Amino acid sequence: LIRMQELTVKVPATKPGEYKIEIGTGILGVVWSKIESHFGRGGKFVITDANVVAAGHLDKLLSGRNVPSYVITPPGESSKNMVMLVSILEAMEQAYLGRDTVVLALGGGTVGDIAGFAAAIFKRGVAVMQIPTTTLAQADSAIGGKTGVDSSLSKNAFGAFWHPSAVYIDVATLKTLDDRQYKAGLVESVKHALIADEKYFKFLENNLDAILQRQPDVLEKVAYYNCRIKAEVVEADPTETNQRRMLNYGHTIGHAAEMASGFELLHGEAVAIGIIAAGMIEIEMGLGDDNRVEMVRKMLTALGVHTEIPRNISKTTLMDAIRRDKKAINKWPRFVLIDKIGSVHSKEGQWAIEVGQEVVERVVEKL
Amino acid sequence: LIRMQELTVKVPATKPGEYKIEIGTGILGVVWSKIESHFGRGGKFVITDANVVAAGHLDKLLSGRNVPSYVITPPGESSKNMVMLVSILEAMEQAYLGRDTVVLALGGGTVGDIAGFAAAIFKRGVAVMQIPTTTLAQADSAIGGKTGVDSSLSKNAFGAFWHPSAVYIDVATLKTLDDRQYKAGLVESVKHALIADEKYFKFLENNLDAILQRQPDVLEKVAYYNCRIKAEVVEADPTETNQRRMLNYGHTIGHAAEMASGFELLHGEAVAIGIIAAGMIEIEMGLGDDNRVEMVRKMLTALGVHTEIPRNISKTTLMDAIRRDKKAINKWPRFVLIDKIGSVHSKEGQWAIEVGQEVVERVVEKL
Repeated sequence: LIRMQELTVKVPATKPGEYKIEIGTGILGVVWSKIESHFGRGGKFVITDANVVAAGHLDKLLSGRNVPSYVITPPGESSKNMVMLVSILEAMEQAYLGRDTVVLALGGGTVGDIAGFAAAIFKRGVAVMQIPTTTLAQADSAIGGKTGVDSSLSKNAFGAFWHPSAVYIDVATLKTLDDRQYKAGLVESVKHALIADEKYFKFLENNLDAILQRQPDVLEKVAYYNCRIKAEVVEADPTETNQRRMLNYGHTIGHAAEMASGFELLHGEAVAIGIIAAGMIEIEMGLGDDNRVEMVRKMLTALGVHTEIPRNISKTTLMDAIRRDKKAINKWPRFVLIDKIGSVHSKEGQWAIEVGQEVVERVVEKL
Repeated sequence: LIRMQELTVKVPATKPGEYKIEIGTGILGVVWSKIESHFGRGGKFVITDANVVAAGHLDKLLSGRNVPSYVITPPGESSKNMVMLVSILEAMEQAYLGRDTVVLALGGGTVGDIAGFAAAIFKRGVAVMQIPTTTLAQADSAIGGKTGVDSSLSKNAFGAFWHPSAVYIDVATLKTLDDRQYKAGLVESVKHALIADEKYFKFLENNLDAILQRQPDVLEKVAYYNCRIKAEVVEADPTETNQRRMLNYGHTIGHAAEMASGFELLHGEAVAIGIIAAGMIEIEMGLGDDNRVEMVRKMLTALGVHTEIPRNISKTTLMDAIRRDKKAINKWPRFVLIDKIGSVHSKEGQWAIEVGQEVVERVVEKL
């Protein structure tokens, strides 16, 4: 006879919170005083990368202040790994930072993701403020609290949900972004329009030239559209149990293509391929037609992003990467699909749905 | 003129939760069926260490089932670092585990801390069940959701709050624990009595022999006392903003001594020194007297734990380690002190209070 005593431990609810996103042009120079007024006492630690420093953004943020900083080298996705994370965490510890620290993530998606993750696990969690400087990060990664690093096998394999305490978006920082990065990052804006807002899709169509010319007033509107759409989805489902999955539109095959290319494809470029692949799955499933896919392909092409998969990526590698998707169950992920522009298809209340392996294989063959 | 637009993102409250702790003797063989009934569908991954395997506990848990496992080698605190964490995470990924995974942490404090942390950050968080097999882990580390690894500079430098989904305590696993580990782990029980329950302190005093003889019925009672006390404190303040700090009694100087010894001191041995140091600070601050400190020292000695700091630990190293405490503000930690046995001293509503650096230096000199 085995005797067992039982106790129950209650885990109380966390308090609801909120954070502000501020959007403007040329605001980098005044951000520090805002940070000081909100988080005056704690230690500060800036995480950025070599490109951002070269573009002069770090100097603009600090205006001569002496703040411990970590500059990620080389910049880009290849540095978003556990080795770099440990190096950042050790630098934070060397700076004698306490639990009242605020991490400032100044840069693109790589900087924001790894800095947010470092903040999430440094002494079991300190505050982070996101100051995104790329089209990708301003549209997407700086908002919503997803942080993490890649493993050798998959994107964002290890990470945490860790909401920022504030987000500052200065569209003037986009001026210095190199052309390929700039264009690739716009793909997340197209994604937002596709899943949530047909009016936004039309806005993008009507302002393609102004966007490519990096006109601040239009870029501020783009940022505002993106933040509003993403915030709404994230608020409804912060830890991605269901509804938030719609933000993964184009990302299941996109992430896999990014991994399979060994990061030769930029994230946005890979997502562009994933969006077209999703469109082709929609056709196979009777949810879309050639016209819609062509309209989307036309916009992506107009933004200067390729929608064909590079020849040197093998279809076998791509299929294996799809099976390793973070959200896979029994080695097969679910897919987000749209009914029409601005509206995600849901089935039995689920926003990511089952798609047969043979359907995906057929589509991958055609990519 | 700088124009700024503002958006607010709401972060909703998390739902309240709870988990069960089951305590018994010889229950390891029936735990798996309980896990299957609660978490039938998800993948399982066992994290354990070489000592636990040698003691036969892994075989008992699995009874011939084929489950992917990671065996930490060498066992002990020296393996509780980022390199080991990455190795575990990569093994989990190689096993194609999804977000519906349950990690089973079978072992002592090191196993529980690193396995809980791995679960917290694998794909941004999967479930973990704690199956502690040491006096330390059963009394303390398996409950309450603190997870993490050490850096080269400080204990639990990086980690997360990540509550287990269930805890199974089989006091029969303590039978095979080596004598030094067994005794050191009892120090956390003494700590619980000191901060929360004089009756428990008396129970320990009256049952020293039975405890040292590892009598199952007494050990179950000890486990129950520990879990009840710890659960109550953790429920009131899960993320250690204030009240939970009382569980750090003896740990500020304890952690520092553990680091300064290069982990030659076991955690419990270091905390025993820290408890005596806290007692000496209490005397300096007029909160305690020699008699009480001697009574505590007598119990620790009866349990076979040394309360003197080893000669080879330099006081300078110890003081530097104290300044690196995770909870330090401006390079100086706060201290938890007691008024009397069973009652923590609070000041202006704070459970960890300021103690002058010169007071701590005097006490460290006398250790």
